Amino acid sequence: MTTPAEHITASTTPQRIVIGVDAGGTSTKAVLLDETGCVLATSRTGPGNPTSAGHDLAVANIVAACTAVVHAARARHGQVPPPSFIAFTMAGVLAAGGRLPGVDEALAQAGIPAPISFHGDVLSAYFSATAADEGAVLIAGTGCTSARVSGGAIADTHDGLGWLIGDEGSGFWIGRKVVQAVCRALDRRGPDTALVDELVAMVDVDSELGMPWKDQRLLNLIAWSYGRRPVELAAAGELVARVPDDPVARGIITEAADRLLVNLNASVTTPKAGPLDGPVVLGGSVVSPGSPVGDLVMVRLTEQLGADKVLRARDGRAGAGLLALRGLGVRSDSGVLAVITEGLVGS
Amino acid sequence: MTTPAEHITASTTPQRIVIGVDAGGTSTKAVLLDETGCVLATSRTGPGNPTSAGHDLAVANIVAACTAVVHAARARHGQVPPPSFIAFTMAGVLAAGGRLPGVDEALAQAGIPAPISFHGDVLSAYFSATAADEGAVLIAGTGCTSARVSGGAIADTHDGLGWLIGDEGSGFWIGRKVVQAVCRALDRRGPDTALVDELVAMVDVDSELGMPWKDQRLLNLIAWSYGRRPVELAAAGELVARVPDDPVARGIITEAADRLLVNLNASVTTPKAGPLDGPVVLGGSVVSPGSPVGDLVMVRLTEQLGADKVLRARDGRAGAGLLALRGLGVRSDSGVLAVITEGLVGS
Repeated sequence: MTTPAEHITASTTPQRIVIGVDAGGTSTKAVLLDETGCVLATSRTGPGNPTSAGHDLAVANIVAACTAVVHAARARHGQVPPPSFIAFTMAGVLAAGGRLPGVDEALAQAGIPAPISFHGDVLSAYFSATAADEGAVLIAGTGCTSARVSGGAIADTHDGLGWLIGDEGSGFWIGRKVVQAVCRALDRRGPDTALVDELVAMVDVDSELGMPWKDQRLLNLIAWSYGRRPVELAAAGELVARVPDDPVARGIITEAADRLLVNLNASVTTPKAGPLDGPVVLGGSVVSPGSPVGDLVMVRLTEQLGADKVLRARDGRAGAGLLALRGLGVRSDSGVLAVITEGLVGS
Repeated sequence: MTTPAEHITASTTPQRIVIGVDAGGTSTKAVLLDETGCVLATSRTGPGNPTSAGHDLAVANIVAACTAVVHAARARHGQVPPPSFIAFTMAGVLAAGGRLPGVDEALAQAGIPAPISFHGDVLSAYFSATAADEGAVLIAGTGCTSARVSGGAIADTHDGLGWLIGDEGSGFWIGRKVVQAVCRALDRRGPDTALVDELVAMVDVDSELGMPWKDQRLLNLIAWSYGRRPVELAAAGELVARVPDDPVARGIITEAADRLLVNLNASVTTPKAGPLDGPVVLGGSVVSPGSPVGDLVMVRLTEQLGADKVLRARDGRAGAGLLALRGLGVRSDSGVLAVITEGLVGS
């Protein structure tokens, strides 16, 4: 059996290639495709999100991912032409004006100038699951956003307003609810909950706050909560999966699912596009299979739309790759997406 | 008619004096009393809260308030003995271990060494309204805390856990709810509300966020919310008083009152003291007379406890002064509190 990459090597030197880059807070991943979607090489570098990594480091890592994937393709396949299009996807790029300054110049300096496009990570997630021009997507990780896709582009988005005033139902939102519920229980302002022991076991801080009448576990939790960046409260959100039958945890799970569905339905019904005639894609750890919030969202969406309309986001590199092919103006339908997805298996 | 201070001048040189200091985020206020509670002088300096002003500035301002009030008393009354006791009250001092390091030394250097005590601002608020050894107090400003007072000291407190994980029903909590409700309305994730126009009129930011499909008012609100310290969202909380009959504003008002009452009742019923046989004191802008949350809290508490049991916090200097007399071990009953309060009128 040959891999897609070996198949290409055996057949012909590709005429045109594209690169799709999925830049995230932990790592930046690139895939190099020929114009039929065959995967010629992949690469991975460090953090590529300008908001969390800083602009300069993000630019360095995403350009390094591009040069690395070109070198890998040449090492494996011999002659490979310079990329004809590069699509970058990352969180927060829309708010920043739809581009990351300095990438053009850095690519030219690295010897791989090319037409480029930038897209939000909602679009790489969406196109990782479907090639449909019309649809909707909900991403729920530490933050959460939904989007309506129309004509292959974002027509509208909802929430994604950040931890302080939005992201309702997100990992941060759930984590903060868990911490608040445990505070209430330890403070006699709310019911006892199995989340107390779970969170106490996670909190590795010995507080020296001078309020001897307060439960030491509560003092430790205060010190823990204010001793890191607010978004790190998201870690506490994972605890609901350990005690999903606890009434307090169940209430948080249900409310999170409710808010995520309100968010998604705002995108489904947006007046900025016609009635939805396409799939809904779910992505991000909070709505992943087996997570209590994700399972609840899936059940409700399946009831609402039918099972065949609800898809799971897959490899963000596939979505970025499909966007690069769309940028080039070549075929990018479900068959091409299947080729990309298969070529990424195990890489 | 003579003021209490003139009365003292006319009668006798006081044998012993005390100072009460109410150190706040905006200013530090001191009162100098003779041992019967007569007000001999007052003073005011800059911010005295170590959390917001920083340790060194706070120490400088509270020591300056002490020297200023001694000088004022001497200027007005001639010979005044050095203070026999000084009580300091300020927010956050309990969490910091019940003292503010360096104050002893700075007072000695300023020529007014004295025995001192530190107390939370909940106690100055409590003793501004009552001299009862047993009672409870709820303070709701930007943050909120309740406390149970027993034997004249704090026996227990509830909430006061800060903006990120607690302070439920506080000014910050209300402000964040207002911003979230407006976000939902502008984002088609929630009902329209009269709070939208109120908040939009307050937000003086032109966002350049690059999401042209989103309502510009929403983009401005995002930029405004993240462009300042989180606690400054409290400013939005004042808007509920402008449209108290709006259903969304009414819901926020009701939920804030509910949470503040749950908080207060946890202090009223704490197992760390016997059944409450004393007054409940309300202090802070959120529960002040005429504020929608304060009026609702007052109605419910009056139903629960009877009108004679619910008191309003008054001048924090009176509470600090009473604490100083208690530190000295002299009479500090309701008659003495009345003398202090009357002496502070107009000063």
